[in-house]
Amino acid sequence: MGEILSNIEKKRHTLAHLLAAAVLKDYPHAKLTIGPAIEYGFYYDIDFSDGDAPGEGDLKTIQKNMKKLLSSWTEFTHKEVSADEAREQFKGNQFKLELIGELEEKGETITLYTAGKFTDLCRGGHVENPAKDISTEAFKLTTIAGAYWRGSEKNPMLTRIYGVAFETKAELEAYEHQREEALRRDHRKIGQEMGLFFIDEMVGKGLAMWLPKGNFIKSEIEKFAVESENDAGYQRVTTPHIAKEELFLTSGHLPYYKDDMYPAMEMDDGTYYLKAMNCPHHHRIFQHTPKSYRDFPIRLAEYGMVYRNERSGTLAGLLRVRGLDMNDAHIYCRKDQVKDEFKAVMQLTMSYFKTFGLTDYWFRLSKWDPARKEKYFDEPESWEHAEGVIREVLTEMKVNFIEVDDEAAFYGPKVDVQFRSVIGREESMSTIQLDFIAKERFGLSYTAADGQKATDIFVIHRAPLSTHERFMAFLIEHYGGNFPLWLSPEQIRIIPVAEAHNEYATQVFEELEAVGIRVTIDDSKESMGKKIRNAKRDRLPYFVVIGDKEIEAKNVTLESRDGDSSQMTRSALGNHLKTEIDTRAL
Amino acid sequence: MGEILSNIEKKRHTLAHLLAAAVLKDYPHAKLTIGPAIEYGFYYDIDFSDGDAPGEGDLKTIQKNMKKLLSSWTEFTHKEVSADEAREQFKGNQFKLELIGELEEKGETITLYTAGKFTDLCRGGHVENPAKDISTEAFKLTTIAGAYWRGSEKNPMLTRIYGVAFETKAELEAYEHQREEALRRDHRKIGQEMGLFFIDEMVGKGLAMWLPKGNFIKSEIEKFAVESENDAGYQRVTTPHIAKEELFLTSGHLPYYKDDMYPAMEMDDGTYYLKAMNCPHHHRIFQHTPKSYRDFPIRLAEYGMVYRNERSGTLAGLLRVRGLDMNDAHIYCRKDQVKDEFKAVMQLTMSYFKTFGLTDYWFRLSKWDPARKEKYFDEPESWEHAEGVIREVLTEMKVNFIEVDDEAAFYGPKVDVQFRSVIGREESMSTIQLDFIAKERFGLSYTAADGQKATDIFVIHRAPLSTHERFMAFLIEHYGGNFPLWLSPEQIRIIPVAEAHNEYATQVFEELEAVGIRVTIDDSKESMGKKIRNAKRDRLPYFVVIGDKEIEAKNVTLESRDGDSSQMTRSALGNHLKTEIDTRAL
Repeated sequence: MGEILSNIEKKRHTLAHLLAAAVLKDYPHAKLTIGPAIEYGFYYDIDFSDGDAPGEGDLKTIQKNMKKLLSSWTEFTHKEVSADEAREQFKGNQFKLELIGELEEKGETITLYTAGKFTDLCRGGHVENPAKDISTEAFKLTTIAGAYWRGSEKNPMLTRIYGVAFETKAELEAYEHQREEALRRDHRKIGQEMGLFFIDEMVGKGLAMWLPKGNFIKSEIEKFAVESENDAGYQRVTTPHIAKEELFLTSGHLPYYKDDMYPAMEMDDGTYYLKAMNCPHHHRIFQHTPKSYRDFPIRLAEYGMVYRNERSGTLAGLLRVRGLDMNDAHIYCRKDQVKDEFKAVMQLTMSYFKTFGLTDYWFRLSKWDPARKEKYFDEPESWEHAEGVIREVLTEMKVNFIEVDDEAAFYGPKVDVQFRSVIGREESMSTIQLDFIAKERFGLSYTAADGQKATDIFVIHRAPLSTHERFMAFLIEHYGGNFPLWLSPEQIRIIPVAEAHNEYATQVFEELEAVGIRVTIDDSKESMGKKIRNAKRDRLPYFVVIGDKEIEAKNVTLESRDGDSSQMTRSALGNHLKTEIDTRAL
Repeated sequence: MGEILSNIEKKRHTLAHLLAAAVLKDYPHAKLTIGPAIEYGFYYDIDFSDGDAPGEGDLKTIQKNMKKLLSSWTEFTHKEVSADEAREQFKGNQFKLELIGELEEKGETITLYTAGKFTDLCRGGHVENPAKDISTEAFKLTTIAGAYWRGSEKNPMLTRIYGVAFETKAELEAYEHQREEALRRDHRKIGQEMGLFFIDEMVGKGLAMWLPKGNFIKSEIEKFAVESENDAGYQRVTTPHIAKEELFLTSGHLPYYKDDMYPAMEMDDGTYYLKAMNCPHHHRIFQHTPKSYRDFPIRLAEYGMVYRNERSGTLAGLLRVRGLDMNDAHIYCRKDQVKDEFKAVMQLTMSYFKTFGLTDYWFRLSKWDPARKEKYFDEPESWEHAEGVIREVLTEMKVNFIEVDDEAAFYGPKVDVQFRSVIGREESMSTIQLDFIAKERFGLSYTAADGQKATDIFVIHRAPLSTHERFMAFLIEHYGGNFPLWLSPEQIRIIPVAEAHNEYATQVFEELEAVGIRVTIDDSKESMGKKIRNAKRDRLPYFVVIGDKEIEAKNVTLESRDGDSSQMTRSALGNHLKTEIDTRAL
């Protein structure tokens, strides 16, 4: 009986007992309810309605008491009791009595566990010698929250005290550091502070409203994508955000993907849907004119906005949205071109990551499961070929990759790029998918060299830069808002020390503006110290302070947000910044 | 009795009689039905089911017979007859009998008109002396089409013979020229030939699918807009294509504009609509942070795609669509800034037209009607002020403008820019609207210099470059597909005379590509003549033929699509083209 708990889980569970014991010392009227181990720690839900309740400020005292008690907890003993014995033990605690009644009804054994002088109704799962096994430096009480008894708002509100616990002090510190970073770098918080985007309840959840500064960053990313896709032989198209159901019936999105799509709109000429993917539209563009074997590969690119019907309760910031502005493209190629094209997409993807300074990633090859014929297009040879091509590419490129079964798209295998974010979250960013089914669903074909009709058309679906929404959230957290110069909406600020320096400052301002630098000038009446603090608060990559010294020397001192400082002539300043921008330096 | 017809209408009506008379000469079995004057000419619907029917090839003969007959038509006589007399006259012609029966039933006078030897049932409205009044050089039969008797598909199909007719031969020729131009320049025809865009029935009517070449032109126009808007102090934003009904209830689009919007989509958190305009979203961006008097003017720009529910039967090419990619922006300004901002928009608009070489336009100031309080926001002083400001701007700028009553938007007066297209069609292209109501509907406000809340916020809605769809249609027809170099998807083609010249041609190709020219090379096995014809067919602004002469002289001969030709060095060629592109020369 009892669950099988890992060592750390046993410690966390033990600490929940210890928390309860410590609370009872100062709050003898408290009624205990339940106290489990959870991810990173533990909690205990307690009813304080018969007297004083602790606040956040009391957690230190409770924690001190826990540590004092811990030294006397050298073992756990337990005994089986009858329901009536248990009821006698928890007399007056309606919560425990309710639990005992349920155990009795189910015919389960009832056990009481004791450590030190504290006894609780429990199924077991503790460390053997808490005093020895648990480090007083490796746990901490963190916060107090309200929680309904058994999670139902019809029940009384209890007080939940949370704690975190790890094996060692170092692990606890690492966790706390990551937690602080996560809060500090939260893309919603920074997005708000920097005025990048917002979600407007009146417009709708999961729909980003891009403010001018966020729009600038988004446009720069898009410009970068367009430039590199042009160089890589992509052609750009634009397709509408809606289409008739005929299109989605052809593609198979209806009925298979219907739940993820927005509801239908009935028009006078048929039923329309918002598109959830760009591929069906692109396939129609491919089909618009007859193709010859010489035309391949054909790479159709579009930063295309798609709309997906996610449950409103799951939407959060830019990471879980309903409107997705996707770095999309579809590459149509012959069978003999698949490998080269797939490799080229891999290389483009990796070159993007390099530009953004992203290094902590690996690849995941998602394959089909031949046993699940209902889930996948049943063409074993095609699957084998497609998976084989991708494996070859990954192997030749010597990249880190893992293979997972039963995770492919229904139309073919895919490679996802997995990231470990700076705050420790693993997420899928880019995707490259190999589709051998579109040709059949849409009847794609071409005229081969021998003049015959051929159909060996493969489609690579790819989104190396993910969606604007997801990628922006990731970058904000990655840079902590300190975007590289080329992505900074405000690149440099000129700060005249006093009014006498405004004229020279304005000259510098105008020189930089003339060469296309996004420059501002702070000629407000604030003190210099305040102006500099503001520039740092606004995450300016650079600022320049203009005082008597600079005017005399006819130069400027360039200060970076990292604290670097260097003197240079005015013309050197423009060149310095331009080079950093044009090379998209980190 | 009879309708009151203008002189040209009388001629056209007379010619319908003449056509009928000429047809009866060669097709005595033909049964006449009706033959009215129409815009530009006339037609006659005739039943040939009892014998041979004429084809397009027979129109010349019929026309010759008309001209022969005309000389004998020196007068029209008419007489009133009883229904029975009329029935006797048209015995065996069930169509005329049906018409006579109706006239009888309504108690109308029945008249027969005779010219030469031809008599028809008619209400009158002819020229007095056809032989003298009608020039044989000023009319022409044009085409034959099918038409149901009285327009109903339940009735027999008749043969409709069309003719055009004018006062003079010169007018007829002018009409024919314009007609040919209209067909030659039709944006759907050229769009198809050049591979710019298409409408896909499977995606939906009124929804442009932009092919790579059309997308290039669209992007260049957009780049131009973004550049000039950046220079003019606009800030760019991006907003979703949908929003909750709450937003459109606030803006007033619901219920007032509901019929023009796509139907609602019910989601788990409310009702959503595709946006038909960008303004409500922009107003929410304006409202997102508190504003001070120093923040104005605020110019929010977005090439925003909007969707409008037009009847499917009215949709045609890019001129009447359901998806509109709008050159949109909203300028928020204080009352004291309205005039300057309105003027700046006018100037920007006119500078755009200059760049595109558009000169044949005038302005139309649309005002409210104080008597129609149900149609307009009832603030006479605001209307007077707003119309006055616009009139002042138009007057000071010395532009051609007319004023029309009762054509304003419900929220304020507007200026539309009216164009006479190269094919003679008048259309509204750009619009600049002055809105003094948004502030009340959305509760827009700011902190004035005295620290008090102020609400004198005016919004200028503007779309100088119209929508991509409308503007592209207009430009295609204006240029007849011969886009200026900067807008040409393919800017120059290198044509080696024979295989021996491929190497040098490739060098030239690579040099141009390296400096960002959109260059192609035609090293196919076609003859030089064919290659040059293809380049002209593809509307290439320039091509370069490379033969022995060029290789020897180490230069190139630049040939333009207009037939100009000039020799230059290879490096001069790149510079020449770059300058023309960068200055957006016509």
